[in-house]
Amino acid sequence: MTQEATKKPLYVGLAGMGTVGGGLVELLEKDAELIRRRTGRDIVLRKVLVRSATPERAAMLPEGCELTTDPADLTDDPEIDVVVELIGGTGAARSLISRALDHGKHIVTANKALLAEDSKQLFAKAREKNCLLRYEGSVAGAIPIVETLGGPLAGNRILSLMGILNGTSNYILSEMTSNGLDFETALSQAQELGYAEADPTLDVDGFDAAHKLILLIRLAFGLDYPFSSMPVQGIRGLDSRDIAMAREFGYRIKLVAEARLHEDGDGRPRLEAGVFPMLVHHTYLLARVGGVYNAVRLEGAASGSLFLHGRGAGALPTAGVVLSDLLAVAREERPNNTGFADDEILSADIVSPEDWHSEFYVRVMVHDEPGVLRDIAGCMADEGISMAQVIQKEVRDDVVPLVFMTHDASAQSMNRALQKVREKGVLRAAPVYYRILQ
Amino acid sequence: MTQEATKKPLYVGLAGMGTVGGGLVELLEKDAELIRRRTGRDIVLRKVLVRSATPERAAMLPEGCELTTDPADLTDDPEIDVVVELIGGTGAARSLISRALDHGKHIVTANKALLAEDSKQLFAKAREKNCLLRYEGSVAGAIPIVETLGGPLAGNRILSLMGILNGTSNYILSEMTSNGLDFETALSQAQELGYAEADPTLDVDGFDAAHKLILLIRLAFGLDYPFSSMPVQGIRGLDSRDIAMAREFGYRIKLVAEARLHEDGDGRPRLEAGVFPMLVHHTYLLARVGGVYNAVRLEGAASGSLFLHGRGAGALPTAGVVLSDLLAVAREERPNNTGFADDEILSADIVSPEDWHSEFYVRVMVHDEPGVLRDIAGCMADEGISMAQVIQKEVRDDVVPLVFMTHDASAQSMNRALQKVREKGVLRAAPVYYRILQ
Repeated sequence: MTQEATKKPLYVGLAGMGTVGGGLVELLEKDAELIRRRTGRDIVLRKVLVRSATPERAAMLPEGCELTTDPADLTDDPEIDVVVELIGGTGAARSLISRALDHGKHIVTANKALLAEDSKQLFAKAREKNCLLRYEGSVAGAIPIVETLGGPLAGNRILSLMGILNGTSNYILSEMTSNGLDFETALSQAQELGYAEADPTLDVDGFDAAHKLILLIRLAFGLDYPFSSMPVQGIRGLDSRDIAMAREFGYRIKLVAEARLHEDGDGRPRLEAGVFPMLVHHTYLLARVGGVYNAVRLEGAASGSLFLHGRGAGALPTAGVVLSDLLAVAREERPNNTGFADDEILSADIVSPEDWHSEFYVRVMVHDEPGVLRDIAGCMADEGISMAQVIQKEVRDDVVPLVFMTHDASAQSMNRALQKVREKGVLRAAPVYYRILQ
Repeated sequence: MTQEATKKPLYVGLAGMGTVGGGLVELLEKDAELIRRRTGRDIVLRKVLVRSATPERAAMLPEGCELTTDPADLTDDPEIDVVVELIGGTGAARSLISRALDHGKHIVTANKALLAEDSKQLFAKAREKNCLLRYEGSVAGAIPIVETLGGPLAGNRILSLMGILNGTSNYILSEMTSNGLDFETALSQAQELGYAEADPTLDVDGFDAAHKLILLIRLAFGLDYPFSSMPVQGIRGLDSRDIAMAREFGYRIKLVAEARLHEDGDGRPRLEAGVFPMLVHHTYLLARVGGVYNAVRLEGAASGSLFLHGRGAGALPTAGVVLSDLLAVAREERPNNTGFADDEILSADIVSPEDWHSEFYVRVMVHDEPGVLRDIAGCMADEGISMAQVIQKEVRDDVVPLVFMTHDASAQSMNRALQKVREKGVLRAAPVYYRILQ
């Protein structure tokens, strides 16, 4: 199947030689034949930007490729067609991409933080310069969700999307669920295995998933959702008791990023979006996403439900889709960076999380005394919340966990009801509650 | 979110006004605003080709759109930019597409039979005329598998793919499994619900899944696999006893279309592909695909395992991806019809199904006599096949079903072993065996 390249090579400048960067260098070499077959061209790595140019790193590069520590060597080199940005973060990456676009270079990036927090100008500049700005690697690793939303699902009005978008959190929750670990132990284990950073904030506090959700909202709905407005709750400190209790009701606890479009009476679309630990019924495919896997479930007006599942991170899974983005550049596909024709992405009308409705899982720690359940049920009923199922068992120092599932209620009424319960003086610890995925 | 179209409309000629055609007419009207947002253009239906132009049909069309019974009205009209072929079959559809390409029109089709049996010339002609030939709707309904293989997974060497690609068969198997129906009853029920045609041959005998598999093989591996060479076994006459027995071992029986690439010692890739009822372990996501849903599982060298699940057929799910193909045409994406740059798709080196290795499920009907199991195990052992698990129960007229699962074996040695068992004279009916999905 050997094929000669029929067109001039695509010259690449790579910024960042970490896990994914290293994977990309490996794939460019190993899959040179596949690349020629897919595009009719060679993809040639010319320069790699690193913080320190060690001989070990230089030895990993193909012949004719130079290491540099100066971003301008990539952005200003007239021979380079496309800059691959894999340094991450929002500072240096932003300057690099902006300057590369100024010089008319296409961009391939996996930088969700930058694209979520600060991308309007970058998309506008890419459009103005007629450059591609591709970012399949920035969401859900090998799962082709960016392309799916902008391409084959573009003919669908997307009604909702929900995803497990952070592999680190999912790994921790899976270990807590399957092996009964507590949060701190599971986190340490994830850190030892290299699944979690020394500072796990971005992952376990939900911000990484929120970044990705903002990218998906733009692709699915053509709406800009400000990062600062997004309700985000992570899994830090999640109690393994709640995982066990949820299991008794037939649920798993997952960190779910979710966005739903609501049509108001006046026909204006409003968006409900956020990241939360949620109870997912075990019969849902989303409940079966284990370890470091990611998954996305979409609901399209025409398509119905669509479920995509794959590796959410790692050197090769992400490098593979970064390479696919390079192939798209090599095939000179036209700019369609956001999946919408508009220059300017519209701002979302946001539904406050207080107004969201769902079923809830609630755990309160109470003294095992007569009348406590009646008091709590009364507070719920006062706010129009009815209880669907109750579990009460396991006595410990005469403080008892009382767990119940509710029927549909707004977060606002749940908060008010729990405030009333607090005022009754029957609680021995702060109440814990999670939404149940519908 | 109202947006004006900024470019000239895309003019469409639609051939076929059946289920999917009707769905497309509906979406073009309802989603006009979304289409403008996605592309900056209007997509305007100009002519619809039908076999008989009834007033009822004319009433379903938008203003300014004409019904016609003459294909040349679509193919030769200089105003029409793209022809959507939804008439199906290989005769009239082929002439229509070929003539439309001669006139430089882009093509959107959902015709898997045509593209599987007779598409080399059509792809070559599309390329020569610089026309798009898009066909997302031809495989697995709303699942974006065509785009995924040609786009975001293009940077992966695909090692294997397996799918549940025929919703009718999957519905029948699901009903047989969940409700204990026999094949004929489940088929009648599928026909009553409109999930199966009056002549169900294409669906239940595996040919429809085989057509789709050929399209996926081309996209994944860039290889042409002749339809006439493909091993195909359907589900007609599948015994509900085998479904029940498989269940006892923890498996579901699914109609699986599968292709695996093998590297020979000399590095030449060889392809193992076919459609068979197979046992799928209940813990696999593929085992959980129910009713008329479809699913595809890919294994990529970089991506690892990827699983896509969605509606496999129906008016709107398929019309939605046909519309997405129209959006891609409207955005003037460059021709990349096969996912490979080559004009000519290479021919596959095919592995004979006789040489495939797998674990097997085997059921034989025997007299309940001493020594029978020993005889059968002996025949298996003579061919190097070892038995992993055996079930023997339920006595009926003193003929007993003896069911066993084997370790890895080639189909050839299994056939030889079963021939030897036959020659022992202990069988009371032809043996039944299925491969077990690895």
